[in-house]
Amino acid sequence: MKKELNKIMDTQNLDAIMVLGAAMNNPPMAYFTGLVHMTGGAVIKKKDGETTLFYNPMEREEAAKAGLKSIDMNQYNFIEMMKQFDYDLVRVSAERYKRMLKDAGVEKGKIAIYGMNELSNVFSTLNLLQEIAPEYEISGSAGKSPLIEGRVTKDDIEIKEMRKISRVNMEVVASVQDFLTSHKVKDNRLVKKDDAPLTIGDVKQHIQIALAGRGAADDHTTIFAIGRDAGVPHSTGTASDILELGKSIVFDIFPHQGGGGYHSDFTRTWSLGYATDEVLKLYEDVKSVFDTIVAELEEGKEYAYYQDRTCALFAAQGHPTIDKDQTISEGYVHSLGHGLGLNVHERPWCRRLGDVGEKLARGMVFTVEPGLYYPSKGMGCRIENSYLLGHDGKFENLTEYAYDLVIPVK
Amino acid sequence: MKKELNKIMDTQNLDAIMVLGAAMNNPPMAYFTGLVHMTGGAVIKKKDGETTLFYNPMEREEAAKAGLKSIDMNQYNFIEMMKQFDYDLVRVSAERYKRMLKDAGVEKGKIAIYGMNELSNVFSTLNLLQEIAPEYEISGSAGKSPLIEGRVTKDDIEIKEMRKISRVNMEVVASVQDFLTSHKVKDNRLVKKDDAPLTIGDVKQHIQIALAGRGAADDHTTIFAIGRDAGVPHSTGTASDILELGKSIVFDIFPHQGGGGYHSDFTRTWSLGYATDEVLKLYEDVKSVFDTIVAELEEGKEYAYYQDRTCALFAAQGHPTIDKDQTISEGYVHSLGHGLGLNVHERPWCRRLGDVGEKLARGMVFTVEPGLYYPSKGMGCRIENSYLLGHDGKFENLTEYAYDLVIPVK
Repeated sequence: MKKELNKIMDTQNLDAIMVLGAAMNNPPMAYFTGLVHMTGGAVIKKKDGETTLFYNPMEREEAAKAGLKSIDMNQYNFIEMMKQFDYDLVRVSAERYKRMLKDAGVEKGKIAIYGMNELSNVFSTLNLLQEIAPEYEISGSAGKSPLIEGRVTKDDIEIKEMRKISRVNMEVVASVQDFLTSHKVKDNRLVKKDDAPLTIGDVKQHIQIALAGRGAADDHTTIFAIGRDAGVPHSTGTASDILELGKSIVFDIFPHQGGGGYHSDFTRTWSLGYATDEVLKLYEDVKSVFDTIVAELEEGKEYAYYQDRTCALFAAQGHPTIDKDQTISEGYVHSLGHGLGLNVHERPWCRRLGDVGEKLARGMVFTVEPGLYYPSKGMGCRIENSYLLGHDGKFENLTEYAYDLVIPVK
Repeated sequence: MKKELNKIMDTQNLDAIMVLGAAMNNPPMAYFTGLVHMTGGAVIKKKDGETTLFYNPMEREEAAKAGLKSIDMNQYNFIEMMKQFDYDLVRVSAERYKRMLKDAGVEKGKIAIYGMNELSNVFSTLNLLQEIAPEYEISGSAGKSPLIEGRVTKDDIEIKEMRKISRVNMEVVASVQDFLTSHKVKDNRLVKKDDAPLTIGDVKQHIQIALAGRGAADDHTTIFAIGRDAGVPHSTGTASDILELGKSIVFDIFPHQGGGGYHSDFTRTWSLGYATDEVLKLYEDVKSVFDTIVAELEEGKEYAYYQDRTCALFAAQGHPTIDKDQTISEGYVHSLGHGLGLNVHERPWCRRLGDVGEKLARGMVFTVEPGLYYPSKGMGCRIENSYLLGHDGKFENLTEYAYDLVIPVK
């Protein structure tokens, strides 16, 4: 949580955190500023000191929304600096960062840098900054990262945002189900009013609109994959595919609040009208493992333990599992889940680095998403909820939704 | 253009380009792969050689859409490497980049790196790569950048995409105008059916939905700002503001193709029902300068020349201009425009670095967007089109739309 940052920085001998870049689509920046419309700038957090936002004066109104101490970047007079440094943009940027650090009260010491940025310029600039300002040690995260460490548990403000986007997500899922069932069936497929087949592309368009109307967005990443595509975990589906009855559909939707912000993550597997015995069996295998894992979730247990447990459960059902062979593409081929927040994938990670895995702790938000994949048989199945381990020690499902495999059609 | 890359790399003594990160919201990656759903990976382009895409096997289907020679990243066996390097993720990543460079046929030499990435890890990793692989010189863009140099002019495939997103944008603008005029007037403001005032928030929601229905997105950055907010160039508008008649509205919309891709950029200034004399005068001043500049556009002229020209024209009208004072917040306070493509702001830049400014050349797409801002008087005005200087030497307005200031209401 944000309030632990000073302590974490202290443990890691860091004197400041410096976040570069825009506020949109930039999780570390949004962590400090919220989703304000800033196309560039920087945040410098001094250990045990203030957090300062540096903004472009054209964006002063947006910058003010962040509620931080803020400094107009115009005061560094770009044009003058360009003249002074013979129009060397990298040099000017490095000099400016140096002045910004001083103005944020950071005189020397180790600086951890963050932010979604185009590498090309920033890589040169930060290396030059290191050269011209040897009083600083410019550091990436060599294993340790105060910001990531801080973000692994969420505070009440963040939890509120995550509940909000999860509710939006569930509304959108319900509207997709309604959209599907509002279509009639002809020749074993869903068709539109003019009897043309409904396609995955149509469903995706419905999803885009349903999200947008609620201020959310998915950057076109929602997975709505039928048949063989459902058997490939990250296939987003083929736009021209038609919605045939009795085929497994993996619907995995992980929107953010629009231009970044917190995420919700949720998957159901559906089969329209009826399910074949093969798909039903697949679904029952996954659902049984899903239920077991969820029932066994426990504060203080390693998240990665549940990956071992999932592999064991699927193996007992007779499926190939990734713990035995990293290269499989049929059976249980991925990890049980991941942490969730400003990034759709973030800590806690469901794996061990060496002998040590992260333990489920209060304030963590993470997914449970076992799945089975058989592209050769034209099917796949995944079930996923996002869980919060609350500050009261209780697990809360942020994505309450029915688990039905078969979606009745008319 | 992409076909010039080898030549540009040669001029800059570069042996390879390496792009890191996801394909979505990552312009340099999308330049090579298109908008495929890859959450991570890399592209390595060898000078005078092949371009290789490295992908996560879960995303093999999406990776295949890029149509590049591709390599499954599983072959580097992450788990084995983690054991070998004592679970040092930065070390493993650096080792993997080294192997990837070899597998892309790049044995040594200068590598320019690119890609939207979270700095924290990548900064450490690239510096370590430099240490463990001294046969390479890992380089940001110290002033010169082959990819940016290549992207400054668009080829026919890119121009087609830019025309496409511009058409979508114009449809959305028209739908916003229809949306506004479909509302009735009460007490000098637009109201909904229940007589509650229509708000900027409502208009923004309409914009989100209209874009989403067409596969486009704006990351919530569209500017729809009325009155005083219209006088602050980058204020996106206040959601709770009501739509009063007779006030200047700056509507600046610059969507992309959804999860990144090419952009369109367009601004009109509207006044609902009627315009006050003051707003009308402001509009006429801007429109006259806009028309003059557009009429004077000429192949081979410096883009920055038109900024000087715009300042002179506004100054002659009696407005403060930024060329005389960088710190003004009233009058003409910004630059005339910017290049447009996979980034909403990219080369050509409308400024001079020293004595030299970029010249308008065939294949460039750029904006012309003069504006005047008087927040103290509660008004602002900007008019913007995106222009292509075609390979036939003709200027083409990609954003054809009426220039009317007053939007009639019922």
